[in-house]
Amino acid sequence: MRRLYHFPLQPQSRKVRLLLKEKQLEYEAIAERPWDRRDEFLALNPAGETPVLVEPGGSIICGDYAITEYLEEIQPGGTLLGALPVERAETRRLVQWFDSKFQRDVTQNLLHEKLIKRICGQGGPDSGAIRAGRANIRIHLDYISWLIDRRNWLAGDSFTLADLTAAAHLSCIDYLGDVNWDEFLGAKEWYARIKSRPSFRPLLGDHLPGTQPPAYYADLDF
Amino acid sequence: MRRLYHFPLQPQSRKVRLLLKEKQLEYEAIAERPWDRRDEFLALNPAGETPVLVEPGGSIICGDYAITEYLEEIQPGGTLLGALPVERAETRRLVQWFDSKFQRDVTQNLLHEKLIKRICGQGGPDSGAIRAGRANIRIHLDYISWLIDRRNWLAGDSFTLADLTAAAHLSCIDYLGDVNWDEFLGAKEWYARIKSRPSFRPLLGDHLPGTQPPAYYADLDF
Repeated sequence: MRRLYHFPLQPQSRKVRLLLKEKQLEYEAIAERPWDRRDEFLALNPAGETPVLVEPGGSIICGDYAITEYLEEIQPGGTLLGALPVERAETRRLVQWFDSKFQRDVTQNLLHEKLIKRICGQGGPDSGAIRAGRANIRIHLDYISWLIDRRNWLAGDSFTLADLTAAAHLSCIDYLGDVNWDEFLGAKEWYARIKSRPSFRPLLGDHLPGTQPPAYYADLDF
Repeated sequence: MRRLYHFPLQPQSRKVRLLLKEKQLEYEAIAERPWDRRDEFLALNPAGETPVLVEPGGSIICGDYAITEYLEEIQPGGTLLGALPVERAETRRLVQWFDSKFQRDVTQNLLHEKLIKRICGQGGPDSGAIRAGRANIRIHLDYISWLIDRRNWLAGDSFTLADLTAAAHLSCIDYLGDVNWDEFLGAKEWYARIKSRPSFRPLLGDHLPGTQPPAYYADLDF
């Protein structure tokens, strides 16, 4: 069986879990703490990073970029990138927006400071970083609302990997209680649509020991 | 004509310039300082980041991820990713290795601290970051040498986007004089092969005002 090594609150791992479910590909999920640097895990991925996918035949696919494009290639029937090259370029622009810009502006400042540092024993959170993350997220929620005002889904008419990527990041920040949904109704309506997809259900059930998401975190009506 | 907005010493811009030349696609290069946040540039890419490709028909392709995959899709005849899905996954694993891990370990610590901060007027370099960048680069040059001991090119038998990405990053660090090639002979031999490709020539001619690369920077015999 296909195996996925992932960290439950890493957006890039969540993106791949969502994609596997959307493509109806069965897999066994193995939770990995990449900072433990387990020898068996480093043998799979010398970069020491999740996600890593091990195919039934033994092929090892490392990193969210390689995995998402690989899954598109082996299952070309149902694309989650888009049909035409320019549509696919728009999806990938937004994937990079969230995995690079949102990651730097928000995920690094909130998820890393408030949760990962504690789990890894790297000391307390930097309050300046947290303030910056909370200010920055507003720009991204505004941008999502702006796009959803003009399009059905983030990249256009169809549901794509851009929606999965954005929702993967936001779901991690939402776990921390740092998304003021009611101020961004366009983004909220879009997130509610994604949250109700069957692929999203397993993510909403994740609980990291010693942490507690807000009460509305797993609610479809939030 | 195709137009590319790029910053001459940004690895992700260099990767796309190399790819365009390798694919023998003509283009006009427009040097952009993304931190100036020019209105005309922000209208092309709201993320405000280079590279951005504008196609002859007017399509705007933003970001190195979208551009490299788009160029593969519109020119499928000559792939620089690899033939089989697992080979392409290995290329993409290494692209992400350099654009994410090398970027964080080395490029951010050396290029950003020594050059970009000065150009943007963000103050002097952090000496701790520079020390970290110089220590970290050794791990990456070791890894390149290890791969080249076992393979013809980084991802396998064929020259791929992994080689272009790694060389794009290293060429920026080499411009700063921070690569001790003679300690890493496998990596040096591999870089010499890439440096001698016609696609690499234009990069070696770039000079940023107020900066001076080391004398050997553009030499094919270094």
